[in-house]
Amino acid sequence: MTDQNCGVSNIVGASFSIHPMSDDFVDIIMGALKEVDTSKVWLETDDVSTTVRGKSVHIFDVTKALFMHAAKTGKHVAFQATYSVGCPGDSEGDVYLEVDEVPLNEEKVRDWKQYVAAKFSLYPLGGGNYMDAIYQQIEAMKEYVTVSHAHYATKLEGDASQVFAGLENVFNATVEGGSSHTVMTVSISANSPSHKDSN
Amino acid sequence: MTDQNCGVSNIVGASFSIHPMSDDFVDIIMGALKEVDTSKVWLETDDVSTTVRGKSVHIFDVTKALFMHAAKTGKHVAFQATYSVGCPGDSEGDVYLEVDEVPLNEEKVRDWKQYVAAKFSLYPLGGGNYMDAIYQQIEAMKEYVTVSHAHYATKLEGDASQVFAGLENVFNATVEGGSSHTVMTVSISANSPSHKDSN
Repeated sequence: MTDQNCGVSNIVGASFSIHPMSDDFVDIIMGALKEVDTSKVWLETDDVSTTVRGKSVHIFDVTKALFMHAAKTGKHVAFQATYSVGCPGDSEGDVYLEVDEVPLNEEKVRDWKQYVAAKFSLYPLGGGNYMDAIYQQIEAMKEYVTVSHAHYATKLEGDASQVFAGLENVFNATVEGGSSHTVMTVSISANSPSHKDSN
Repeated sequence: MTDQNCGVSNIVGASFSIHPMSDDFVDIIMGALKEVDTSKVWLETDDVSTTVRGKSVHIFDVTKALFMHAAKTGKHVAFQATYSVGCPGDSEGDVYLEVDEVPLNEEKVRDWKQYVAAKFSLYPLGGGNYMDAIYQQIEAMKEYVTVSHAHYATKLEGDASQVFAGLENVFNATVEGGSSHTVMTVSISANSPSHKDSN
């Protein structure tokens, strides 16, 4: 880990997992990876999670598209991600920044209807007023989906595209608001048998 | 959310999910819940995750035991948790603190051998020296399991009991070290087909 470029570097990353609760989990994950164009992000998978690094727009585009493709199978799918940007704590390299801002997968999944329940937590690190930033972004999220309070997180319910749009907005707004090191954790559940409203 | 008891309250909590990658996911989760004694924690499940709140020892005892029971089925099981303590940000209530410190499930699962790969991230919030606390705890983890660097996390490999022992130690040490609001995220994978070493 190096801090040399702290404050200059704008590498956004996500460490995420897609968990299809199905005997076909390998096929579902592989199928999603095949359908999604990941050429504008650095990507590495190990036995715990997949990490993508690059420009913010592509990190959200790729993670959303992978989740949407997995959920489209109709199986109960859980998605877990930690989005992160900033330093100290980040390392250099392993990143594609020499690409344009045009998302590669947005158009394909834009009109897919997928009800989800989700929880997100925002952690602006290293600053004293971090709770204000959190409350502000919970308010902002209400423009996208249904928001309620949960222990240790904020609950979101609605269409997957709107949930991801809200998450991307909240994350970017926290960074633009001055947080030098921002972490956002997200858990999303699709097609759960315990969803009360899964239209 | 209230801050009145900030610095006094010692409610530890975890928001977690167990994802068996199997058509039998409901039975596996229900089976684990049946086998684990959760009477010393407050517990609530919704369609995204389960939340437990109480004394630190019981939060780790219950989450570990639930994971161990699910993994014992031999199915590929992923466990995700956010452990949290402190304020601002915490709310009062929904907690069992009038219990002793004797863990109810430790003895049963103590000798179960279960290889796991895991990633954890520690977020001591609201303080300037949080990176020092993180580096110190990554060192401490090396006494328990194999530790390596990953983007946005620290990778752990070894026996599940040792992984949980290390996580509990790191979390408690960060709190005792003076962090007023500590968050730790954990992803654990058991019986993965992509595990290279799963003895």
